[in-house]
Parts: sequence; C-alpha cells; structure tokens
Amino acid sequence: MFLDQYDIIVVGGGHAGAEAASAAAKMGSKTLLVTMNLQAIGQMSCNPAMGGIAKGQIVREIDAIGGMSGIITDETMIQFKMLNLSKGPAMWSPRAQSDRMRFAEKWRLTLEENHNIDFFQDMVSGLIIENNTVVGVRTGMGISIRSKAVILTNGTFLNGLIHIGEKQFGGGRMGEKAATGITEQLVNLGFESGRMKTGTPPRVDGRSLDFSKMEEQKGDEKPKKFSFTSTTQLNTQRSCWITYTNSEVHDLLREGFDRSPMFNGSIQSTGPRYCPSIEDKINRFAERERHQIFAEPEGWDTIEYYVNGFSTSLPDDVQAKALRSIPGFEKAKIFRPGYAIEYDYFPPTQLQHTLETKIIKNLYFAGQINGTTGYEEAASQGLMAGINAHLKINEKDPFILKRNEAYIGVLIDDLITKGTEEPYRMFTSRAEYRILLRQDNADERLTEMSNKIGLASDERLKRVDEKYGNASQLVNYMESQSILPDEINPAILKGNGSPITQSVKMVSVITRPEISIGDLTKLDRVTEFIQTNNMGEEEVEQSEIQMKYKGYIQKEKDNADKLKRLENLKIPANFDYSQLKSISSEARQKLNNIKPQTIAQASRISGVSPSDISILLVFMGR
Amino acid sequence: MFLDQYDIIVVGGGHAGAEAASAAAKMGSKTLLVTMNLQAIGQMSCNPAMGGIAKGQIVREIDAIGGMSGIITDETMIQFKMLNLSKGPAMWSPRAQSDRMRFAEKWRLTLEENHNIDFFQDMVSGLIIENNTVVGVRTGMGISIRSKAVILTNGTFLNGLIHIGEKQFGGGRMGEKAATGITEQLVNLGFESGRMKTGTPPRVDGRSLDFSKMEEQKGDEKPKKFSFTSTTQLNTQRSCWITYTNSEVHDLLREGFDRSPMFNGSIQSTGPRYCPSIEDKINRFAERERHQIFAEPEGWDTIEYYVNGFSTSLPDDVQAKALRSIPGFEKAKIFRPGYAIEYDYFPPTQLQHTLETKIIKNLYFAGQINGTTGYEEAASQGLMAGINAHLKINEKDPFILKRNEAYIGVLIDDLITKGTEEPYRMFTSRAEYRILLRQDNADERLTEMSNKIGLASDERLKRVDEKYGNASQLVNYMESQSILPDEINPAILKGNGSPITQSVKMVSVITRPEISIGDLTKLDRVTEFIQTNNMGEEEVEQSEIQMKYKGYIQKEKDNADKLKRLENLKIPANFDYSQLKSISSEARQKLNNIKPQTIAQASRISGVSPSDISILLVFMGR
Repeated sequence: MFLDQYDIIVVGGGHAGAEAASAAAKMGSKTLLVTMNLQAIGQMSCNPAMGGIAKGQIVREIDAIGGMSGIITDETMIQFKMLNLSKGPAMWSPRAQSDRMRFAEKWRLTLEENHNIDFFQDMVSGLIIENNTVVGVRTGMGISIRSKAVILTNGTFLNGLIHIGEKQFGGGRMGEKAATGITEQLVNLGFESGRMKTGTPPRVDGRSLDFSKMEEQKGDEKPKKFSFTSTTQLNTQRSCWITYTNSEVHDLLREGFDRSPMFNGSIQSTGPRYCPSIEDKINRFAERERHQIFAEPEGWDTIEYYVNGFSTSLPDDVQAKALRSIPGFEKAKIFRPGYAIEYDYFPPTQLQHTLETKIIKNLYFAGQINGTTGYEEAASQGLMAGINAHLKINEKDPFILKRNEAYIGVLIDDLITKGTEEPYRMFTSRAEYRILLRQDNADERLTEMSNKIGLASDERLKRVDEKYGNASQLVNYMESQSILPDEINPAILKGNGSPITQSVKMVSVITRPEISIGDLTKLDRVTEFIQTNNMGEEEVEQSEIQMKYKGYIQKEKDNADKLKRLENLKIPANFDYSQLKSISSEARQKLNNIKPQTIAQASRISGVSPSDISILLVFMGR
Repeated sequence: MFLDQYDIIVVGGGHAGAEAASAAAKMGSKTLLVTMNLQAIGQMSCNPAMGGIAKGQIVREIDAIGGMSGIITDETMIQFKMLNLSKGPAMWSPRAQSDRMRFAEKWRLTLEENHNIDFFQDMVSGLIIENNTVVGVRTGMGISIRSKAVILTNGTFLNGLIHIGEKQFGGGRMGEKAATGITEQLVNLGFESGRMKTGTPPRVDGRSLDFSKMEEQKGDEKPKKFSFTSTTQLNTQRSCWITYTNSEVHDLLREGFDRSPMFNGSIQSTGPRYCPSIEDKINRFAERERHQIFAEPEGWDTIEYYVNGFSTSLPDDVQAKALRSIPGFEKAKIFRPGYAIEYDYFPPTQLQHTLETKIIKNLYFAGQINGTTGYEEAASQGLMAGINAHLKINEKDPFILKRNEAYIGVLIDDLITKGTEEPYRMFTSRAEYRILLRQDNADERLTEMSNKIGLASDERLKRVDEKYGNASQLVNYMESQSILPDEINPAILKGNGSPITQSVKMVSVITRPEISIGDLTKLDRVTEFIQTNNMGEEEVEQSEIQMKYKGYIQKEKDNADKLKRLENLKIPANFDYSQLKSISSEARQKLNNIKPQTIAQASRISGVSPSDISILLVFMGR
C-alpha cells in the first residue's frame, strides 16, 4: 500500500497530530498522518476558540517555534480579544473565536501543502515493536506501515465512552467511532493507563436565542493576531453573548443529579477541574447564585452556537429544561445535547522531557493521551513531539524548553515530573517566571532556538531581529532624550500622578503607572523618530514593556539564573524536613520519604511546589 | 428536548434528506432534520460530481420543481461539461465536478437559511407507530420526537457493512458508524427488506500522479449551469485527467479474485450493474483490453483525487499494486483504499407513487433505502417525498409526475411498479419519451406544476414564461421571415447540403442538419430582432430546439397521448400470450401467470417492458 519508507507516523489529526506532522515534515522527515477520518482533520471538538489566559501565550510560543496553530487561528478567526489588558503585560492573553469549519479546512489544506506529509485514512489498532523500539503501526484494515518513530495523538478516542445521563455509547466523539487496540497493547508492554473524563455543552440554534436578553461581548476595537508572521488582519468581527444561570436553573439541574453519570458512579474518572461541568459548578460552589454562560457563534455564516459554560452530562431532558430557564435561552432549540466522554490516557510520568516514552524507544505521546486538556496544550505537545522525534531519528540533540523559557516548558516539565491526576490545563500560576513568559516576547524567547534546529525559517528570525532591534533603538532614544514638564504634566495630572518639575529623560516617565507610551509618541519629535525608522505598532509596544517592566524582568531573570545554579545543589542526607513548618504537609511527608539528593530532584517530586523549594533553600542558607 | 410539534421529521442529511427537508419546509411544514453527524450534511460520499447522462436531466428537473441540488452544484462546481452535444438536444446532459467540501458546506448553510427547518444530531433507532401510522421517531439517545410524517433517507447506513478484501467492518461510510434498529422494526411490522451493495474507489494524492501520462479533460469553453435561477456563472475551471487500465493491471487484479468479497461469497447482495467495480468489469468484459480511468480533483485547493472507474473491494495490497500499473499512477499515494458496502434496503414495490409506504401511513422512503443508486436519483426522491409528505398531512392531492412528464416520473414509476433487484440508476433508455424529457425544457414541464402546489416561487414561474414567450416570438419571427440563397448557401455548402435556389422562410433551413441557429443569428436583421427583444442565449437555443425537432417532439406527444388513452384498455380474459413470439420469455411467462386486466396493469409487471406492451397492443389490433 505504501511506496515510501516513512520516518515518522503520526496517529491522529487533531491539534496535537496536525502540529506534530507539520513540524516533523517541515524539518525534513517523511511523515505519514494516519487518521480515522480525513474529513475531520483539525476539528475543534469542543469550543470554537483558541487562546485565553496562559493558553494564548502557548499559541504565541507555538507560532514563534514555527507551529501552525497561530496562523490557522488568524486566518479563520471571527473575533479577537486581548484578555487582561487592565493588568500588566505579563498577564495579557490573546483569545480568538474561530469559524469551526474554516479552521478545520485550513488545517487540512495547510498540511496538504507540505510535501513531506502523506495521508492515510484508517484506524491504528496497534504498534509494531522490535527490541523495545517502535518500528511502525498496524491498522484496523490489517495493514502494517513501517517508520522510524511513531507519535500517538489519540485524543479522546482510545476506548472512548460517551455518557448522557444514564445512557452510554462507545465513540471517540459524538457520531464517530472509538479506537481500540492500542491501550491493550501498551498495557501488555508494561505501560500504566488510566481513564479521564471531559465534557462538552449542548450546541444550539442561534435563531432560537433571544440576544436582547443577553449582554453583547464584542471583539477588540483593534483586533490583534496570534502569529508573528504576516497573517491577515481581521476587520469585521462577530459578537459573543453573555447571560447567566439562576437559582431556577440550578434547581432544575439538581433534579437530575440522581441520574447524572458524574454523581451516580457511572463515571469514576476525573474531569478537568478548571473547566467543570455546570452540575459540578453548582455542586461545588453551592453558594454561588449564578454562573456566566457565553453564547458563541460557531462561524461566520452558521446558525449554530456553542453554549460555553454549560458543559454537562445530565440527562437530555434535564439539560433542555435547565437551559431554557436561562435568560435568552427560553426557546432554545438544541442541535445536540452536551455529553461527557471517558477515554484512556497514560500517566505522563512515563515520558521523558522529549515526550518519548521511557519503555518504548522512538514512541512519542502528545495531547490528551498524556492527561492534558485544551487545544493549545495538545498542539504544543504535538509540536514538541514532532520536533523531538525528528531530532532523535537524525541522532541530534533533543529540543527541550526550560520552565523559564516557555509555558510549553512548564507544561511538559509539570507533566513528566509530577504527572497529573486530572486533565491538566495551563495557568499562569503554574509558571515561576510569568514576567519573562509573556505573549509579546514569545518570538524573542523561542524563534532563534527553533531556527537553530532547522524549524523556524531564517525569514522568521530576521523579523524577530528587526522587531527587537527597533524596540531597543526606541528604548535607547527615550533613554537619551528629555521631556519638558509642559509636555507631559497634563497626562500625569490626568492620571492623578505628581507632576515633574524639570526636564527628565523620557524613559523615566514611562515607568509611571499613569503614563503610557502613547503619551510620548504624540510628541512630534517622537513620531518623527518612529516614522523615520519605520517602526511598527508592535515594536513601540515592545519598547514600552521593556522600559516599564525593566526592574521586574531583571529580577525574574536573576531568580531564574539563581535557581538554575542551585538546581545541582546537594541536600544533606540527614536533612530534617519536619523543621520546614511553612511548606505543605504533603510536601514535607514526601520529602521525608524520598529524601532527594539534590534540589533538582526535590523539585520534581509530585506535590512539591516551587514555593516549597524556595523555603527549603532558605533553610539551607540560600 | 423539543419545543415544537413537528410536521415532518426527515431522517438523514444526504442528498435525499436534504432535498426532502428543504422542500417540506419551504412549503410550510415545520421540519426536523435528524442526522447522526451534523458535520456531514450534504456529503458526496462517492464521486465529487453531479449530473451526467439522464442524471443531469434529473438535476434540471429538481431545479425546475424548486429543489436545491442544481443551485448548490452551480455554486460549488469546479468544472462543467455538457455531455452528448454531438447528438440531438434530447440527449444533451449537463455534468459538473464539485468541490466536495464546499458542496457540503453550501447544503448545510442553505438548510440553515430555511426557518422551518430545525436540526438534531442523533441516530434514529426506531419509529413510533400508532394505528398503522407513524407519529414520530425514537433515537439512540432514547429520545422520542413526535411528528405527523416521517421520511427515511438512511443511505447506506442501515446495518452498513464495509468490505475490503477479506476484511469487514460495521459502518455507514468509512469512519462513520452504521445505523441499527430501523430495519429490525420495519421487518417486524411486515416490511420485506433486502441487502444491496455499492462501492467506491480509492482516493489518491494528486501530488503523486504523473498527469503528463494522461489526457487532459477540460471543462466546456462556455460552461453552462444546472439551475434555471440566476446562480453564479463559472469562469475558471479545473481539469480532470483520463488514463486507461491495461492487461498488466487486469492480471494483477485477477490475482486477488480469490480474496475478493465479490467472488468468494462474502458479499451476496447485488451491486449497481452500470457502475460496476473494476473487478466486475474485467470479469464480465474479459475481452476488453482496457478500461477508462478518470482522475478527478476533489475541489479547488485540495490535493485529493477521486479515481473514477476504479471502484473496488479487492484487498488493499491488490488495489495498490494494480492501481500503480496504470499510466500516470506509477507512484500513486493512496489516501484510503476503495471498499464495498452492503446495506439494507426495502424493495420499493412496498411504496405508493407518493413514496409513502403501503403498510405504514405517513411514512416515506427516499434514496438508497429504496434500492436506487446515485445522488440525483436520491435527491429527486427526497424532493418528491418531502413534497408529498407535506401535501398529505395538509390533506391535499398528491404530486405525482407521469412518465411523459419527467425522468423523476419514470424513476418512481419504475421503482414502485417493477421494483428493482439491483441498485437502480437512471438511463435515458428507461424513458419512453426522451425527446419530451429534455434538460432544456425541465422548467417548462415542471415549474408551473410545482408553483401550483406552492413550491416553485412565482418569480421562477415568471422566468419560465419569459423564456418560452421569447422563444416562441423568435420561432414566429423565423416562420414569417425569409432568407435569400446568398445569405445561407455558403453555410449550407460548407456542411455539404444542397443549396436553396430561391428565397425561403428561415424556419425551413433550421431543420437542415448542416444548419444551426448561429448561421441565422449572424444576419444583421436577426441580431437586431434578438437584441431589441432582449432575448438571452438560452432562449435562442430553445427556439432552435423547438424548430429543429418540431416533428419528433409532436410525434412523441401524440404517442404519449395515445398510450394514456390505451392504458385503460381491457385485455380479454382469455388472451393467449404464447402467441406473442417477439416479447421476452420472462414477460410472456409473467403475463400468462398474472393475466392482467388492463394494459396499465400489464405494463406495471416487473419484467414487462414498454416494448413488450407495444407488441401486445399490435396483437390486440392497436
């Protein structure tokens, strides 16, 4: 059936699989993408959106490394919002709604444009293993396909079981078959497997919603983009709509609890804590009188809406009744009810930092199979697995991102060192170096590294150099140029700041909270400087961040350097952890049991947080 | 789950289901479309093309009645060809390649625009029946939905079983689940069911084909359209490519025959005789040295190609080897192998002319469930079922097309009076009145009828009136105006005709085979007449057909009228059919057994052809 010898086989065509195939193939690996349904490549199985807090940073990192998720989102988005704009730039997080159909189509066409990717539609039912090394896959049709490495990105398909109330159906997504065979084989090979659960809300007919009872949530007036490349700029947008549950909705939902698979024991596996079902929310937060619900359009033209915030596996009649008690949803027509799905995953502590499994060589896992949740988390793992599989079979050094280099580094380090008991999603709080890991500087952090391994193109790198060159130039300019009290005091006073009394360097006013760079770029000489040097908006913004947060940024860099040095620090063998009163009791217990030899080892113990490590260091005299 | 009381539930979202829902809803029925996968509405499961000989006429008829297939094809086509242009206009048949993804998307959006259609994603697993009348459906999720009528359009999904070589998988299409429950229930209710089989060829990667070894097949220079409405005119097109099998290919295929489900007994059910698999072709036509293969692009941008002519269920290794022995396919990469699928159907003799079942009231069947094959056949049945279900529940007269009114009339009459032992597809030879049933006059034949029942809009009807008014005016003009020898003899001589010697009426030269209307419209006074009266190209063409084929058309009209009168003619009770030597022995035997009372009844017996009836009439002295 196959003419080519493949370097890499990617199993699955979702966010993880698509990024994995794209990256490996771009780097030069002859890659085969095997999926059960070629029409479903790049499907957004759940909400039609990319990004959000911490997740938006990941998409920017994917883009900086040379992944495609950012570009595809830009080209298919129907709304853009920069979240957390009122907070510091470390917290700014891009988020976009995409057209679900266009997103999948764009992924398919993007992969098709890559001449190193071949496609095959079939279910992979097993791996071919020789000498503890994977050398190919076997399919449901009974075909054997050989390769040097295999990346599994099975999403929710491995023994997928869908629940709606007391009803259960086998399936990987509603209307699609589950995949069988892989889990059983891996368990026989010595892998530990578990079950996780996720869920999705009902889809409804937008024609049946009363938007006059909801709050309109428009996109940003000046929508930005995910990609650092020259993708299309959005000019028109579609709105989302906000409404709220109420006590009646909650009461109606509670009436279904005895028939809920979550509460009656049918579902034993753990769901995503931070993306809970509506029944979870009213159960865990019984005191909350209402929960926010977003009606999100699924595309430019379609009437279908996604009911964000109403994920549920309650019986369909309960869903319908409760949903229709939400303002604006009184006459909601349901395209399909929400449901929960249970699927197999493999605790990610069985992986190396490259996402290669410890037990079987050249076998990589990415996405939900590792116990994560979220498109962005999946896509970034796919990208890293694709890169590392390519590097491995070409006998090159692995590509590993550190916790102070990228959210992706945090993600993978958390997964493989601590594992996860519930679907893992990214938060800014998981990162020790949030001020370093910003969405605006993902390119500065990662593009050069990616260029070195042959993924990010020279052109991309050139663009990064230009951006930061220009930003530096503007910083230098503002460090050298002065500003007069008359020029800036009106803005200072407007922001209730204390006015300056004599001419100061421009940079010194930028650090004031009430002043933004816009107050300076208004000045003719600054405008002229920016125009003469062809500086773009992004570059001006970058220089502002560098000036405004210089102190914070430097402090975190120092901390990161310090921790790096301390990582190899030996802990005395007889160290008594019971003296560490302020660390968690879980950490104290585990440290006492395991007695790690170094700080690095201590930090990798599940349940031991970075702050526990800081306290330990203090006690050790650092 | 459902707020509305539905008038009609349509089960399935393929060509039949989409047309059924569209028509019923346009006429005013509150309609629910239930499908297993809302993402798969309007899927072209097999080749990405609409129309062809006889089938193109059906699409034109669907359009004239107010169905959507023609419009959707026009808006998504990538190539158009008018087939049989060298033959008389009765044989002209439009055919188009469509962009597979756009076609499905356009259907989905078209249905969404219809405010009487609601959508629900679920598998229908049974019908709710009360007093021998269907009153709703039950779904796989266990939901009951009530309605006044139900239209089943299950395609190949009912207990679908996919075969590739010796391997079998349950499924409605590759990668999609089969539907269960309905057949079992209907059989318990007294329905007879059977199994049919169809197949599809491999899909391949266009980047791996060598088109320099194939013949390019371009679209028409002046592409036409399917719809009589003002759909978009195609301006750029994509080419298809022609190549041929050879004896090596045939030998390789034959090597797999012992593992072929068609030949080793795994598949007992009958496949479409006139859309045979490649193994069928080389088996049945062993003397043929080669068979034509078309490489057809699946869309504007995609690299996927459909290998028309190579439908097969041979083992995948045999498919691959044989395919790669076809010139241009030497390095073909296969996206997925071809396969055969067996599915349940219900012999259509169990239906009335309205497509309502005889056993259960208000239950309609359309498409492959009736034993037909082809998108056009399915779409037209869906349209007729949708119309008739609406009329029935509103206690109006049924909408039945006669054999001399439409191919759709021939199709349904054949199905319900003769049944079918193999997947039924339309041919021009099935129609007795081919010269009446042209693609150019489908609007004249059907739009007024459809307007009367409230489907085709007044605007559509006005357009028809204008077209035929203008055509008549031009015919009248040419009947009254003369042409001089000098004006036409050059064209006559060029076509090797005998020149005219004196001025004659224009109409009299049009009937000559060597003269087309273009030879007359060149004349200044004719051009001026056409321009002054704002006549379009289609209207000029129509007038030509009316003049050129006037005699043939009139003769067929007379024949149709005559047969209509004869249909009620009584056959003597003791008529001895053994004296009819020239009819088929099957017909003789059946007529002797059944002893029909009238010619009409005789003509409805399966195995008795229209020509058998003609011979019978001769013997009866008519």
